[in-house]
Amino acid sequence: MRRVYLDHIAATPLDPEVLDLMLPFFKERFGNPQSLHSDGQAALEAVDGARSKVARLINADDAEIFFTSSGSESNNFAIKGLALAGRSRGTHLVLSAIEHQSVLNSAKSLEKTGFKTTLVPVDKDGLVSPGDVEKALTKETALVSVMLANSEVGTIEPLAEIAKRCKLRSVLIHTDAVAAAGNIPVDVKALGVDALSLAGDQFYGPKGSAALYIKKGTRILPFIDGGIQEGGRRGGTENVAGIVGLGKAAEIALAKMGERAEKARALRDRLIEKLPQKVDRIALTGHREKRLPHHVSFCIEFIEGEAMLLSLDLKGVAASSGSACTSKALKASHVLLAMGLDHALAQGSLVFSLIDGNTAADIDYLLDVFPPIIDRLRKMSPLYTKYLEEKK
Amino acid sequence: MRRVYLDHIAATPLDPEVLDLMLPFFKERFGNPQSLHSDGQAALEAVDGARSKVARLINADDAEIFFTSSGSESNNFAIKGLALAGRSRGTHLVLSAIEHQSVLNSAKSLEKTGFKTTLVPVDKDGLVSPGDVEKALTKETALVSVMLANSEVGTIEPLAEIAKRCKLRSVLIHTDAVAAAGNIPVDVKALGVDALSLAGDQFYGPKGSAALYIKKGTRILPFIDGGIQEGGRRGGTENVAGIVGLGKAAEIALAKMGERAEKARALRDRLIEKLPQKVDRIALTGHREKRLPHHVSFCIEFIEGEAMLLSLDLKGVAASSGSACTSKALKASHVLLAMGLDHALAQGSLVFSLIDGNTAADIDYLLDVFPPIIDRLRKMSPLYTKYLEEKK
Repeated sequence: MRRVYLDHIAATPLDPEVLDLMLPFFKERFGNPQSLHSDGQAALEAVDGARSKVARLINADDAEIFFTSSGSESNNFAIKGLALAGRSRGTHLVLSAIEHQSVLNSAKSLEKTGFKTTLVPVDKDGLVSPGDVEKALTKETALVSVMLANSEVGTIEPLAEIAKRCKLRSVLIHTDAVAAAGNIPVDVKALGVDALSLAGDQFYGPKGSAALYIKKGTRILPFIDGGIQEGGRRGGTENVAGIVGLGKAAEIALAKMGERAEKARALRDRLIEKLPQKVDRIALTGHREKRLPHHVSFCIEFIEGEAMLLSLDLKGVAASSGSACTSKALKASHVLLAMGLDHALAQGSLVFSLIDGNTAADIDYLLDVFPPIIDRLRKMSPLYTKYLEEKK
Repeated sequence: MRRVYLDHIAATPLDPEVLDLMLPFFKERFGNPQSLHSDGQAALEAVDGARSKVARLINADDAEIFFTSSGSESNNFAIKGLALAGRSRGTHLVLSAIEHQSVLNSAKSLEKTGFKTTLVPVDKDGLVSPGDVEKALTKETALVSVMLANSEVGTIEPLAEIAKRCKLRSVLIHTDAVAAAGNIPVDVKALGVDALSLAGDQFYGPKGSAALYIKKGTRILPFIDGGIQEGGRRGGTENVAGIVGLGKAAEIALAKMGERAEKARALRDRLIEKLPQKVDRIALTGHREKRLPHHVSFCIEFIEGEAMLLSLDLKGVAASSGSACTSKALKASHVLLAMGLDHALAQGSLVFSLIDGNTAADIDYLLDVFPPIIDRLRKMSPLYTKYLEEKK
């Protein structure tokens, strides 16, 4: 059976070039970067080389890159580390309502220690309004966190404008760029952010290897207390092979970004155009233009996301209904609810996210197998039967 | 030139069998374990299989194993998570004076939020007395943390007895078993601990992959807030290949532990016996018998650790002067100072830690190249010249 992988937002395959570069660090180059001997120094050199490559991907300086183990860790590090270091300035946080759980739940942890959070709403396309962020700022605001792109609906936020409003009020701003970095151009200086999270597994790098950008001079508490690694801000023996892989993936992403995005965009737009012609009561979620090039998301009425995913899987198609981090929680997505969808419709969420290597034939295959799945599932839905009757 | 790697405590090479098992997860099996489709389920199965293997290594149940990215992260997770979850019971921590920086500095972070720490002293061999731990307990004590074995001096602590004293007072106990697990038998039930940290890079598994054992029913706060991974206690996409590698390394360690230890012990004892015959003013640090089988550590008078390491490296020998996490801080080790060594002597610390594959010929080579290095370095030491003159 044909296998069509359309779940970029959950995981990308590792670029073979990335793996080739990682392998020696699993073999003869196994030293600890903090060791003074030459085995250690060889590892350190590799880690620092990777740091430069990650820095270049987002136009940062090498010393502004801190390696972590996941986008979620980067988000925890940023939210908790910046908020707690800036506690004397204030204990108010401003987040968008559609942030990732690792951002929202970091804020919830901080609330237990006296912080207060304001969630800024989004419009029906998932866009955060810079004016709304500005209105949410108070004298007590220590930190704003708004994601660069949302992985569930693909919408790209007007972050430079949001950051500008924060800077005018001297408020720190972090952005979760996990879904964006490596896939669309990201320039920390042009964005004007103080901190930015990214993860290698979103651009053909290894899982378990991610980074946090922290602008020079920004005070942040360490996340993992321990040794002298990562400037004393993140203790623990470095995941050398993973870091090397992240660096190489960043280098390749920078070189191939335009080409990859162009290919993905063509397939994306074909799917966005054709699928609604084959299935009724289906609506694109997220912004039509301001969206990730590899991202297609729909809500499908009278249907339930999990059943669609399992049926698609039986036909060889891997897709998702939203963030992998919450997929099994089986709750309606907080992102879709924030965009104004009702609970029932939010249950019918479906995300097709393209990877490098997907072809027009993959999309044609999906367009073939998907409508019969929907037909079959809807036949089992009393609500759909009722809808058809009322329509008559 | 011959290369002799004697820095197990900094990093072990990856077992080729471990790498073989990891590789598919960098290639075709790249799914996210939280995805509902079959690519995701294959990854989840692999993660759960690894969880069982790690559990078996320490006689735990599968559900008691939580994957992390390093021993330092496991220690942070345990110390902060247990202390903060048990805050209502009390805000007093008891640690041994020779804990790893990730334990000591986690406690320091907690002190900023109102916790108080008592450091229990050690004897000249680095042994913690169970009676001293008991004496340090107060009604306010929320958590005790004593390491199972110390990576700088090799001493194995009487942890079962320490845990017993804690249990009698209903105080939680965590142990940092990073240096011990996979190298000597570790049984969480026999030890009677509530939490235990271990790291794959200490037993031929990959860097960036570690675990925390948390006894069933023990309350702990999440360390990385986020999604539903690791039972909601540690968010972030799983480092699938790393976890698979950790599992395989645990399985191999359990099978080969006796054989590996026996080989290492023979080489260790040869070095402990012969080196002092070739170099004067040298003393073993740590306990002679109660020590890790792969661990040899000395203090050498009138000399400075870094110069020894660099000179050894030029002869092809990789060794360390203590924990890699602090090696470049160039401070006298807090472990040696706690054992009563003076600053000058503590600067002459040297650790040779054996890996699987080291041979008697490696030890002979070291015994050959080391004495001339010491001679040369001491000739540059005014203190040694003075000592020689006084000796006359």
